[in-house]
Amino acid sequence: MLFGALEAGGTKMVMAVGDEKGNILEQKSLPTLTPEETVPELLSYFSKKEICALGIGAFGPVDVNPQSKSFGHILDTPKLAWKNYNLYGAFQEKLGIPIGFDTDVNSSCLGEITFGQAGNLNSVVYLTIGTGIGAGIYVNGKLLHGMLHPEGGHIMITRHPEDSFEGCCPYHGGCLEGMAAGPAIEKRWGKRAAELEQESAVWELEAYYIAQALTNYILILSPEKIILGGGVMHQKQLFPLIREQVKKMLNGYINTKEISSLDQYIVPASLKDNQGILGCLQLAKLEYEQQVKYVQ
Amino acid sequence: MLFGALEAGGTKMVMAVGDEKGNILEQKSLPTLTPEETVPELLSYFSKKEICALGIGAFGPVDVNPQSKSFGHILDTPKLAWKNYNLYGAFQEKLGIPIGFDTDVNSSCLGEITFGQAGNLNSVVYLTIGTGIGAGIYVNGKLLHGMLHPEGGHIMITRHPEDSFEGCCPYHGGCLEGMAAGPAIEKRWGKRAAELEQESAVWELEAYYIAQALTNYILILSPEKIILGGGVMHQKQLFPLIREQVKKMLNGYINTKEISSLDQYIVPASLKDNQGILGCLQLAKLEYEQQVKYVQ
Ligand SMILES: Nc1ncnc2c1ncn2[C@@H]1O[C@H](COP(=O)(O)OP(=O)(O)O)[C@@H](O)[C@H]1O
Ligand SMILES: Nc1ncnc2c1ncn2[C@@H]1O[C@H](COP(=O)(O)OP(=O)(O)O)[C@@H](O)[C@H]1O
Ligand SMILES: [Zn+2]
Ligand SMILES: [Zn+2]
Repeated sequence: MLFGALEAGGTKMVMAVGDEKGNILEQKSLPTLTPEETVPELLSYFSKKEICALGIGAFGPVDVNPQSKSFGHILDTPKLAWKNYNLYGAFQEKLGIPIGFDTDVNSSCLGEITFGQAGNLNSVVYLTIGTGIGAGIYVNGKLLHGMLHPEGGHIMITRHPEDSFEGCCPYHGGCLEGMAAGPAIEKRWGKRAAELEQESAVWELEAYYIAQALTNYILILSPEKIILGGGVMHQKQLFPLIREQVKKMLNGYINTKEISSLDQYIVPASLKDNQGILGCLQLAKLEYEQQVKYVQ
Repeated sequence: MLFGALEAGGTKMVMAVGDEKGNILEQKSLPTLTPEETVPELLSYFSKKEICALGIGAFGPVDVNPQSKSFGHILDTPKLAWKNYNLYGAFQEKLGIPIGFDTDVNSSCLGEITFGQAGNLNSVVYLTIGTGIGAGIYVNGKLLHGMLHPEGGHIMITRHPEDSFEGCCPYHGGCLEGMAAGPAIEKRWGKRAAELEQESAVWELEAYYIAQALTNYILILSPEKIILGGGVMHQKQLFPLIREQVKKMLNGYINTKEISSLDQYIVPASLKDNQGILGCLQLAKLEYEQQVKYVQ
């Protein structure tokens, strides 16, 4: 049985066809231009495939509430050509197959849970730190939705006393994304993040901000595992620094086996940057199963 | 059909018997002394009642994972006589009826969802601000559990530039609880919170800290409603101040119908301080239904 997967990112679209075991049979990508330019190419790709369902993980904010009139629409995005675009509807209309729909980061979280290291866990936070910062959250055995979906990249954090950078989030200035995403690193230090590898002060400070966010996620969500992905997390030296800071910030307040082995608790993504597309594949499968169950 | 409810708080134990519609038929309370002194009285009370199940909402941290060996135990608490005490086990052994078990704040959250204003919602945050600060969280249609349960009262926040109070949490100093619970207000201003009612600077600052926490809960959990209870929230002038600050902190980033009507989004508890005991009643009912379903 074959499923389609579409990781609809702000800069590129990744399309794939795979099976229910997470084997990707083919994969292709396109730059994200306007809906008029990009969507027809995506539709033409998937309509030629023998897929039973499609899973879409989209850049946000998106409406993920199936009861809502604007379900599957991109909402208030700075990418103006996509604002209020009915992404789900475009595929639904043309393909007429079950379509699972969620955010890109929720999909990555699901990818890790289904095919990666977080299998069998009930509650997982997936954080991507790249051009932006986004959180995918799985709790009580499901991806988290509510009024909307998690926007955990924009939480408030405290500026380090020796950091004079004001932050670069257009909404919040010094929120987590404004202080710690790739562009913030570049603005603060005047070089691309990858070129700063040898500068230990850069990664100490970066770990301080990421650890504040993780500490709050731990205290609010009590996840069983935290997975960190995205371009910035290619700097592997961040992991021990983050774990050390989280330990310091929790300061003995939470006593669980997970917290006593932070090496296994705060971990890198394990699917070689395929967690997103694999999560989309699983979204397709889950939606297919749900609709089949409903029909029977 | 009658159910028992026990709100096991750090300072007092509230016992009640009620029906499945949330009618409390009788209620009684006792001070919380040691387990040896207090538990026999509780057991003797409930063993004389014709109840089909009992619901316990306990002060934490507690083990709420039914798969765990220490399920239903009080964990690492400053109330040393209760540390590692098997609260669930004591009732299970003596009463031999289904027992639902959760934290006191999760129970209050469930009380509001079942019998209060948050009925039919899928995701709700209940925050109590009293002697301590605790968060009960309901998401994806269930109370939130994970590695442990939410400990959202201890999240990190940013000190106001004009506030020189260091905070009084024994673990974190200036976490939310350390800066904004009743005892923090008293320490900072030198008077009991209730006596400061006329001092607008007190409530401006209090709202600033509470709003930081709510902003982060909103960004992480995307709840459909936030309910505030506990002694400090008897200061009703806090509500407009908190809403104003939350609006400022989100700064237009989240555009939903909920956020555009904060008066209905951030609200006082509606059950006259009975949300906790009513939630325990519902815990009993849910556990009863679950066990009956399992037997059939
Ligand atoms: N090896 C690296 N080390 C540090 N930062 C990196 C590295 N590779 C990419 N980045 C940063 O990550 C960001 C891109 O993130 P990425 O996750 O690859 O894409 P996106 O977030 O756009 O999907 C850029 O800001 C870039 O500077
Ligand atoms: N009317 C009030 N206004 C402000 N603070 C109050 C008021 N009533 C109680 N408090 C504060 O709330 C705290 C007690 O909280 P409460 O929720 O009643 O109990 P607990 O948290 O112990 O269960 C105390 O610190 C007290 O100063
Ligand atoms: Zn922001
Ligand atoms: Zn604390």
